[in-house]
Amino acid sequence: MNRKQDDTIRRLFEPKSFAVIGASRNPTKIGHNIFKNVLAGGYKGRLYPISPSGGEILGHRAYASIEEVDDQIDQATIAIPAKFVLEAIESCARKGVPAVQIITSGFSEVGNTGAEQQIVATARSAGMRILGPNIFGLYSATSSLNSTFSGTSVMPGNVAILTQSGALGIAMIGKTAVDNIGLSAIVSLGNKCDLDEADLLDYLVSQDETRVILMYIEGVKNGERLIEALKRTTAYKPVVVIKSGRSKRGAMAAASHTGSLAGSDEIFDAIMRQCGVLRAEGLEEAFNWCKFLARTRLPAGDRAVIVTNGGGVGVMATDACEKFGIELLDDQETLKEVFGPATPSFGSTKNPVDITGGANSADYHLALSAPARSDSMDATLALYCDTATFDSDNMAPMVKKTYEAHCAAGKPISYAIIGGESVEKAMASLQRDGIPVYSDVYQAVSSLGAAYRYKNYLREQSDEVEEDEIDAAAIESVIQKALADGRSFLLASEGSAVMRAAGITIPQSRIANSITEAVGFAESIGYPVVMKVVSRDILHKSDAGGVALNLENKTEVIDAYEAILQNAKAYKPDAVINGIEICEMVKPGTELIVGARRDASFGPIVMCGLGGIYVEVMRDVVFRALPLNRREVMRMLKEIRSFPLLMGVRGEARKDIDTVIGTILKVATIIRRCSGITDIEINPIVVYEQGKGLKAVDARILIAHSREGHHE
Amino acid sequence: MNRKQDDTIRRLFEPKSFAVIGASRNPTKIGHNIFKNVLAGGYKGRLYPISPSGGEILGHRAYASIEEVDDQIDQATIAIPAKFVLEAIESCARKGVPAVQIITSGFSEVGNTGAEQQIVATARSAGMRILGPNIFGLYSATSSLNSTFSGTSVMPGNVAILTQSGALGIAMIGKTAVDNIGLSAIVSLGNKCDLDEADLLDYLVSQDETRVILMYIEGVKNGERLIEALKRTTAYKPVVVIKSGRSKRGAMAAASHTGSLAGSDEIFDAIMRQCGVLRAEGLEEAFNWCKFLARTRLPAGDRAVIVTNGGGVGVMATDACEKFGIELLDDQETLKEVFGPATPSFGSTKNPVDITGGANSADYHLALSAPARSDSMDATLALYCDTATFDSDNMAPMVKKTYEAHCAAGKPISYAIIGGESVEKAMASLQRDGIPVYSDVYQAVSSLGAAYRYKNYLREQSDEVEEDEIDAAAIESVIQKALADGRSFLLASEGSAVMRAAGITIPQSRIANSITEAVGFAESIGYPVVMKVVSRDILHKSDAGGVALNLENKTEVIDAYEAILQNAKAYKPDAVINGIEICEMVKPGTELIVGARRDASFGPIVMCGLGGIYVEVMRDVVFRALPLNRREVMRMLKEIRSFPLLMGVRGEARKDIDTVIGTILKVATIIRRCSGITDIEINPIVVYEQGKGLKAVDARILIAHSREGHHE
Repeated sequence: MNRKQDDTIRRLFEPKSFAVIGASRNPTKIGHNIFKNVLAGGYKGRLYPISPSGGEILGHRAYASIEEVDDQIDQATIAIPAKFVLEAIESCARKGVPAVQIITSGFSEVGNTGAEQQIVATARSAGMRILGPNIFGLYSATSSLNSTFSGTSVMPGNVAILTQSGALGIAMIGKTAVDNIGLSAIVSLGNKCDLDEADLLDYLVSQDETRVILMYIEGVKNGERLIEALKRTTAYKPVVVIKSGRSKRGAMAAASHTGSLAGSDEIFDAIMRQCGVLRAEGLEEAFNWCKFLARTRLPAGDRAVIVTNGGGVGVMATDACEKFGIELLDDQETLKEVFGPATPSFGSTKNPVDITGGANSADYHLALSAPARSDSMDATLALYCDTATFDSDNMAPMVKKTYEAHCAAGKPISYAIIGGESVEKAMASLQRDGIPVYSDVYQAVSSLGAAYRYKNYLREQSDEVEEDEIDAAAIESVIQKALADGRSFLLASEGSAVMRAAGITIPQSRIANSITEAVGFAESIGYPVVMKVVSRDILHKSDAGGVALNLENKTEVIDAYEAILQNAKAYKPDAVINGIEICEMVKPGTELIVGARRDASFGPIVMCGLGGIYVEVMRDVVFRALPLNRREVMRMLKEIRSFPLLMGVRGEARKDIDTVIGTILKVATIIRRCSGITDIEINPIVVYEQGKGLKAVDARILIAHSREGHHE
Repeated sequence: MNRKQDDTIRRLFEPKSFAVIGASRNPTKIGHNIFKNVLAGGYKGRLYPISPSGGEILGHRAYASIEEVDDQIDQATIAIPAKFVLEAIESCARKGVPAVQIITSGFSEVGNTGAEQQIVATARSAGMRILGPNIFGLYSATSSLNSTFSGTSVMPGNVAILTQSGALGIAMIGKTAVDNIGLSAIVSLGNKCDLDEADLLDYLVSQDETRVILMYIEGVKNGERLIEALKRTTAYKPVVVIKSGRSKRGAMAAASHTGSLAGSDEIFDAIMRQCGVLRAEGLEEAFNWCKFLARTRLPAGDRAVIVTNGGGVGVMATDACEKFGIELLDDQETLKEVFGPATPSFGSTKNPVDITGGANSADYHLALSAPARSDSMDATLALYCDTATFDSDNMAPMVKKTYEAHCAAGKPISYAIIGGESVEKAMASLQRDGIPVYSDVYQAVSSLGAAYRYKNYLREQSDEVEEDEIDAAAIESVIQKALADGRSFLLASEGSAVMRAAGITIPQSRIANSITEAVGFAESIGYPVVMKVVSRDILHKSDAGGVALNLENKTEVIDAYEAILQNAKAYKPDAVINGIEICEMVKPGTELIVGARRDASFGPIVMCGLGGIYVEVMRDVVFRALPLNRREVMRMLKEIRSFPLLMGVRGEARKDIDTVIGTILKVATIIRRCSGITDIEINPIVVYEQGKGLKAVDARILIAHSREGHHE
């Protein structure tokens, strides 16, 4: 990211001076509400209402034009009818405003793309960046700037929200406040005519107030940029995503609503995992996670403990831990040592630790302080079931103290508190204090699980990009020749040439023009071999008697050579015979399919699955965006449900997974480096035992003239 | 269910007179709290505190013994130390009390099974039924009886809760009140020494106040009884279940906590689906569903509509509809006709219907009244995103009116309302009025989805039980012979005999003792055939040259006959040869595995999956409890992920699914009727094209002496 862009986006969030073009005294106008919110929000910079009628607005002198203001304007917000927007942009350009929000709708989202393009062109030539159009505005805690037209005020805090839906964004402002989730920023992205998620992520990752980023996405336009920005972001801060349009019908609805393609949900999902992004299914789940991630430390290790006063919720939490990938400490001696003092004899120090229904707040305090102090424990799940005897008044102080003890020790703790009015009151007060507490076991565990997923991503993540040596020049020349032929696909022989240039093993094959050559080739390839007539004039080679299978020795090769020639001549006397192909017989093995293509949203992606019925019926395939490294490819393979087949089942040996990984990296390198290729599908790839490699039997490759500037 | 039992359980929920044995003036005693709660709950019957010290308790005259009371006692609750309980039970028996709750813990849950058995024996001989021990008591709205020791009062309503966890039950009393979920009953089941879930379901299904039943289950003891009771219940009322111990570790925790086996979660899950039970993952989901099912009608048809003021939440709801199996109306003309008047030109009458962010409460009222009136719509999802301009004060009345319009029309409507404080207030008031509203799209759709799942179960459900004709006597004699041999398994030939007796096709095979016979058998079976030496003295037939495959004509059979005899004699000169087996060569087809066994929790169950790797690696198998009918077996097959292989993929013909269904019913009939069989596994069953049947190639059967009285 260059310095200048960074600065411009900073002026969006931290402007020293701010103009509202369309500020109005009329409270039914959006421009009025924005100006009012900026005032009410306590914006710390210099503020200029711009209104053609001049005068005074809410106590501030209004200017007829931004150009009349005798000050450098860091940011302008435009809230005037669509037809006047271009003029305002031109005015901002002349004034040298670096950052502009366009609230106004009525542009590309309703098909009015021309006007939007003109605006972008004007802004670009003036070095101005634009957020919007068709947005509800922006809130930034750093500069106490609420330039949204929301009816409710924003609660400041540490969660930044980027939303593609304006209506949902406005609703989230209210909802987060009710749920005590403070925001560091909320930005609506609208039509993304200029600035998009990637630009804003690059700012938010460096902004101190933001601890978690929540994104609501309906469609992705420039996915490759987004992937890179997400990777840069998740290296430092957790990102939670809600992506709608995951169902077929939902995708259609999203397309008609935002004009952007939702794309394949499978691919989106795989790429988010690859980028370390936490995908939530709905608002509630996303908020639960954000609340937790904004307020607690990530666990340093895998050893989690459950402390409960009820066996039932303990079991529910144990189930949920398995579902959300949380490992429970199993060292009975340590558990006994740490929790023994807090556990009555009829309780249990096994994990879940059951301090029994008789536990009061002091008992809980004792039990929950222990894991904060213990070197053998990394995370705590604290469960409470309302009892008739618990001293509810002490609930909130107990939770607060044990939460703080965990924070001080750098450990996460997640609370589930189930009960009636008295605990409800305690929870409300804890939430006001910013302590994440949940009213359901499932939510508490899911939130700690999100922290673990993110932590595991950080642990395993590696920036290293691996590409395999391929002869890209040779591949390029094959493509150019085929394109010059007017074809959009490669012939089988060209596909083989690409495989060879990439160093992917294919079955051996040579074309013989004499019996001596045929025998020589067969012996060098090794028996058994297959022989096929080579002739453009004979399409159905088998029908013509032009194929002989499973030839096991010299005599059979000689006989087959003569028979094939004879058959071919009998079948079509005037056929031009270019020789006889001698091919290796591919031994049976485990069949894989490996593919790569350019996705409309995310650019080059690779795909892998076990061949045949597994792919077709079970849809057992996995995806990844590029670039990749060996570790990520291994993770990808492990996501295949039929992966155990590669590891060897029923006493079979482990397959040559290293070579499979290498081949996937080679395919990835081809699609990255050879822009003329749009699709590769190798099916089947027959994989043998460890050390014995694989054979790419059939490679189908589609090509196209690469668009100028498509890949900078 | 017999009349008498029905009456006894009624006295548990609707006692006309009620005694608290262990009532106390000491507020730290459980007996005090129960008596206080009964009084505070406004119990309508005659109430008797029993306390050895006599005197007066909370204004009621206390009796030293229940036998001193000069009244017929319908129910007694016992809350005294464990060592005195048997005495109290004896006293109740003498008094002729028909129903008793034992609150006291310290029995089988801590290994003290002897005392519990004595209590049961005493009760049984007196015709008395017992709830507990180790419970928190019971609440019944019908008689305003709160005999729990909960610290909070119960909110009366229409959801009945049966819980295996006492602590969670107490917490749920508080939590349901906070969530405005009224209860018709809440019962803790404790050790289930006598009464269990099945007994209570049979009462609740006939109780008017109960509209939905929520069960929290940790382990199932008498699953066959439970299955029958659940089926009887779901025929009239929805049942929601939370089952913990679904993970391996959770199951272990549950076992140590309740002493009952959690069993395989896969099987539990399959059986709940089969019984029409809605399984929720956590408390929150269960409460959301109950709230909805208790308050709205089931949809009459599939045509659901989404009405929204925000495109984003509309898309999220569309996604969730697909996930939860809700079909959206797609008739654009009808949608336009019905919603046109309420939709501005820049909105959309497509489904989701977008009435745009400008909609106020009047617009919503117009839009949401429309589907209630329309004959073309069956269910409505109403979504609202807080806007800056909405008249929030009118939110609650608008929702109330449109909800009532839907109720009057017999249609369900589910609301998701997302926003800040003002809508939060409206929601709180709506919830107090018992109107189900949700603060997340996902919850609203999930709840309507639960209603749809239940409705679809009711539509497809059929009481009919189908069994296939099998020769049970013949099977029984095979089993008896093997048991007499001291074996716990059947030999291959015995397995074949069982298959034949059940009418399941197996590959043909006959034992020849001469060349003439061998040829005759081969010709009657049809070529090709396989031949094998029959001799107890030759274990490894192939090594001995005792097997010949793929024999295609008379000459080959004659040659093989002679060769096998010669080889066998050469291999082991003193071997006794009992003949040569002539077997059908099984043609390749789609391989299935069908099994049946007696599950520890649920009794006889059947299993099916696609054979080989699908079962071993992909764990692609499904389960059902018995009895079954063809329709249920078809549903079972459809749950197999690789089911498309049976329907025919890659241009293959559909397989003989009818015969597969018949075979599964036959296997089910065998395990139901032949109590000596504990396990059947037929693997593979080779299935051919429609009309061409199948071959059960290998049947492995385990047997055991059937326990007396195990199957009444």
